[in-house]
Amino acid sequence: MEPIFELNLRLPKKGSRLLLRSLHEQLRAAIIEGRLKAGVRLPASRTLAQSMKISRNTVVLAYEMLMGEGYLVTNTSAGSTVADVRPKQTKQRAALDDGKADRRLTSFWRGRSPKEDTDLSKPARYDFRPGYPDMSLFPFDVWRRLTTRAARAESKLPILEGESQGLLALRKAIAGHVSYARAVACSPDDIVVTSGFRQAVDLLARIMIVPGETQVALEDPCYHAVRNIFESVGARIVPVPVDEEGLVVSKLPSTVKIVCTSPSHQFPLGVTMSPGRRIDLLEFANRHGAVIIEDDYDSEFRIEGRPLDALHTLDRQNVVFYTGTFSKCLFAALRIGFVVAPPWARKALIAAKQISDAHNPVLQQEMLAAFINEGHLVKHIRKMRAVYSERHDVLIKSLQRNCGSWLKPIPSFAGVHLAAVADRRYDIQEIAKRALNAGIRLQTFSSAAAAVSPKSGVAFGFGLIKTKDIASAVTALAQCRL
Amino acid sequence: MEPIFELNLRLPKKGSRLLLRSLHEQLRAAIIEGRLKAGVRLPASRTLAQSMKISRNTVVLAYEMLMGEGYLVTNTSAGSTVADVRPKQTKQRAALDDGKADRRLTSFWRGRSPKEDTDLSKPARYDFRPGYPDMSLFPFDVWRRLTTRAARAESKLPILEGESQGLLALRKAIAGHVSYARAVACSPDDIVVTSGFRQAVDLLARIMIVPGETQVALEDPCYHAVRNIFESVGARIVPVPVDEEGLVVSKLPSTVKIVCTSPSHQFPLGVTMSPGRRIDLLEFANRHGAVIIEDDYDSEFRIEGRPLDALHTLDRQNVVFYTGTFSKCLFAALRIGFVVAPPWARKALIAAKQISDAHNPVLQQEMLAAFINEGHLVKHIRKMRAVYSERHDVLIKSLQRNCGSWLKPIPSFAGVHLAAVADRRYDIQEIAKRALNAGIRLQTFSSAAAAVSPKSGVAFGFGLIKTKDIASAVTALAQCRL
Repeated sequence: MEPIFELNLRLPKKGSRLLLRSLHEQLRAAIIEGRLKAGVRLPASRTLAQSMKISRNTVVLAYEMLMGEGYLVTNTSAGSTVADVRPKQTKQRAALDDGKADRRLTSFWRGRSPKEDTDLSKPARYDFRPGYPDMSLFPFDVWRRLTTRAARAESKLPILEGESQGLLALRKAIAGHVSYARAVACSPDDIVVTSGFRQAVDLLARIMIVPGETQVALEDPCYHAVRNIFESVGARIVPVPVDEEGLVVSKLPSTVKIVCTSPSHQFPLGVTMSPGRRIDLLEFANRHGAVIIEDDYDSEFRIEGRPLDALHTLDRQNVVFYTGTFSKCLFAALRIGFVVAPPWARKALIAAKQISDAHNPVLQQEMLAAFINEGHLVKHIRKMRAVYSERHDVLIKSLQRNCGSWLKPIPSFAGVHLAAVADRRYDIQEIAKRALNAGIRLQTFSSAAAAVSPKSGVAFGFGLIKTKDIASAVTALAQCRL
Repeated sequence: MEPIFELNLRLPKKGSRLLLRSLHEQLRAAIIEGRLKAGVRLPASRTLAQSMKISRNTVVLAYEMLMGEGYLVTNTSAGSTVADVRPKQTKQRAALDDGKADRRLTSFWRGRSPKEDTDLSKPARYDFRPGYPDMSLFPFDVWRRLTTRAARAESKLPILEGESQGLLALRKAIAGHVSYARAVACSPDDIVVTSGFRQAVDLLARIMIVPGETQVALEDPCYHAVRNIFESVGARIVPVPVDEEGLVVSKLPSTVKIVCTSPSHQFPLGVTMSPGRRIDLLEFANRHGAVIIEDDYDSEFRIEGRPLDALHTLDRQNVVFYTGTFSKCLFAALRIGFVVAPPWARKALIAAKQISDAHNPVLQQEMLAAFINEGHLVKHIRKMRAVYSERHDVLIKSLQRNCGSWLKPIPSFAGVHLAAVADRRYDIQEIAKRALNAGIRLQTFSSAAAAVSPKSGVAFGFGLIKTKDIASAVTALAQCRL
C-alpha cells in the first residue's frame, strides 16, 4: 500500500472550491511534519484521483504547487518524489557546524555558550547565591492588583509604541525615588529606562567603546556581567585592585576612558568607597576626560547608619552615569533598570536604546510606576532592610563563631550579600565543591575576577536563605574545610 | 535672619537617638533640593544649637558628616558654607556638552538623536502609517484574563530569573505556531526569544559583524530599523535593488556575508520574492559562505491564495536565520520577537542575549504562551486577515479610481500595508507634506531607502485607518497633488 493512503486525507466534497487548497495543505503538512518522508514516491495523479474520487486535474495542480514550493523534487508523469525539507541531521551538517560554519561568527562569539554562575544541577538545602532578593516576602497581592489595573488601562487606551527613553510616568517615579532614597538629584529627563542593569551597561558600552581601542577599568573582582559586556564589544579591559577603601584610584592608568565601579557596596567584596577615593576618582575623570559608570545595585538595603551618598551626587562635571536596578529591591524577572545620564550623552543613549530594542514592554513600566508612586516600594524596602539586616548579623556572627580561623568577613554597611576572604592556605574552590555535596550552594570570587583577583573568598548572598537556616548552614560549612 | 531658620527644621526631642540623624538628613535634603543654595553660610554650630535647643556637639557632628559627604565646602569655626551640589546649568557646561564632552561618544553616536518616522506633532484625521496593527480589534478581554492568571502564577511560583533563550513554554508555543502558520519546521530548541524583531537583528549583528569589515546587503528600500542596527555596529552596508520578483540576487557582490530580506512581503514595496530568486539566493549563500536574515513580519495576514513559504523551509544548508515578531499580529508594546537559528549559531546567539539583557521579562512570555496555546492567536489572525484583506481591496480600488494617474499600487498578497509608486513627475515628499496639512498622515519610501532608492512612493498602512474611512481619505489625498 502506498504511504499516501496512510495519511488519512480528509477532503471536502467533490466540486468544492476548497478541494484543491485542502489537498495541497494536507500533503504539505504531511511532508513538513515528516509523515511523508524524503524520497517517498507519490502515487500517480490518476491513481490518487481515482482513490479519492476527485478530478485528476485537482491532483495535478496540487502536485504542481508542491513542486513550485520545493516540497517535491520531481513531478513528471513518471512520478513525483518528496523532497528533503526537514532540517538535516547528517554528518555533513555536523562537520559544517563545528568548523566552517562557526567562522561566520566573529572571534569573540566562536564556541561561546551561555554561562551559569553556579552549578544548579545539584539540589541545595542552603542556598547562598548572591544577587537574588527574597521573593517570598514580596507583596505579590499588591503586585497582582497593579497588574490587573495596568492590563485594564492598556485595553482602554492601547499604546501604539512606547517611548524609547521609558514611560514618562515611570521616569518621574524613579526620579522621585532616587532623590529620596539615594540623594541623586535628577529629573525625569535625565533618566533612560533599560532592560535591567545589563542593558544599561550594554548601551553605554555601545555608545562609547571603539573596539580594540577604548580602555575600560574594572574593579578586580567585579560583577562578571559587566566584564562580559565590555569584552563582547571589544573594549580593552584594565583590571584595577580594590582594597578596604574601595577601588584603588591611584592604580588607574591615565589612558583609561571608562571606569566601572560599585562604590556604595562593592561587588563582590562589599566594601564602601571612602570619601577621599571618591574625590580622587572624580578628579581622575575630569583630568583625563574619562567617564564613570556607577553601579548602585543594592545600597537601598543599608544595614546600619547610612552609606555615603552616590558618586553622582558629588559629580560637578557630568562625568558620572548613575545606574540602578529593580532586580534587587523587587525582582530580576521584571527586567527594569535605569541610567541617570549626563546631558551630553543622553540623546545618543536614547537613540541606542531605540535602535537596539525600541523600548521596554509598556505593561511592566506602568506597573512599576504605580508600585513606586503608591508607596509600596519604600514600604517593601523598609521591610526588607530589617530582614536583610538581621540575616547579615546572624551570618557574620555564625561565620566568626564557626569559620573564624579561615574565613574572614569583610564589614559591610548595606546590601543583600556579605563577602568573606578565605585564608590562602585553603583552596576555596575545593571547599565550595565539598559544600555543594553537603547541600550548601556558595559562590566564590573566582567568577568575579576581572583578571586574576588577588583575593579568594565567598560572596554569601542572603536573599535565598531564611534567617533561621543561616546558623545551621554555616555550621555545616565549617565541616567542609579539610 | 539666617536662611537656615526658614527651613522649618523639625527635630525629635533632645536626647533622642535619632536627633543627629534627623538633623543631618534634613540639612542634606535642603541642600540637595536647593532650599539651601550654594555659597550660603550656615550659622555657627553654637548658634544653631541654642536656637534649636539641642546640644552643640550634635550640630558639630552633623556639619562634619555633611562636610565629609561634600555638601559643605568649608567647615571651620569661622563658618560652614554650602557646596554647589546641583547639576550645573552654566555656560561652561553647555560648552562642554556641545564640544569636548561629545567626543567621548564614538563617531557614530556623536550628535545622534532618537528618530521619529513621521511628524507626529500635527493631528491627522486619516492615519496611513505602516507597521501598526489595528489594536481596537484586539481581544483585550482575553488578554486581561491571561494577564491576571500569569500574575497569579508568578506570585505562587516566583521565578528567580528567566532563561536567556526564552521561556520553554513560549518557545514550544512559537514552534507550533510557525510550523502551522508558516511551514517553518523547528523545535523549541531552535528558537531564541528576543525583545522584538529589532533585538533579533541586533543580536545577529553582534555575533557576526566585524566592524569596518563585514559587508551586509540590505534591500533598497528596506525597513529603516535594520539599516540603523547594522550601521551602528560598523557594518559595511551594500544596498541591493528590489524589483517585482523581490531582491535582485544577481546584483549581490560575492563579498557580502549577510543578506537581509523580507521575501514574503517586502518592506516597504510589498512584493513577494519569486521561487527562482529564492533558489538563487540560497545558492548564493551556500556558494559564498553568506547567511540570510529572513524578516517574516506580517505574512500571516495573507490576502488571497497563499504566499510562498518561508525561505527557511527551503534551506538545506543552515544558512537562514528566520525572524518573526508579535508586533504586527498582536501589538508592538509587548516587545516579543524571535529567531529560528541554525544549530551552528545558536549557543552564541543565546550567549549574546544573556550578556546584553539577560532575558525577556517573564510575565509577558507566560501570557503570550497561553494566548497561543489556547488558540487565541490563530483566531485573532483569522479575524484580522479578513479585516485587512477588505481594507487592502478598498484601498487599492480607491487609489486606482482617484489617484490612478500618478500613484500606482504594487500588487501584494499579504500584510498590513500596500505600497504605491509615484510618477516621477511629482514630488512625493511635497505631496506628503501637503497631505499632512490636509489631515492625512503618509509615510513615503524616503525613510526606507538603504541608499538612494530608485523608486519614490508611499507605503499605505491600513492598521490605523478604519475601512469606512479609506475611500474619503484617498479622495482627500487626490486633492493634494499639485
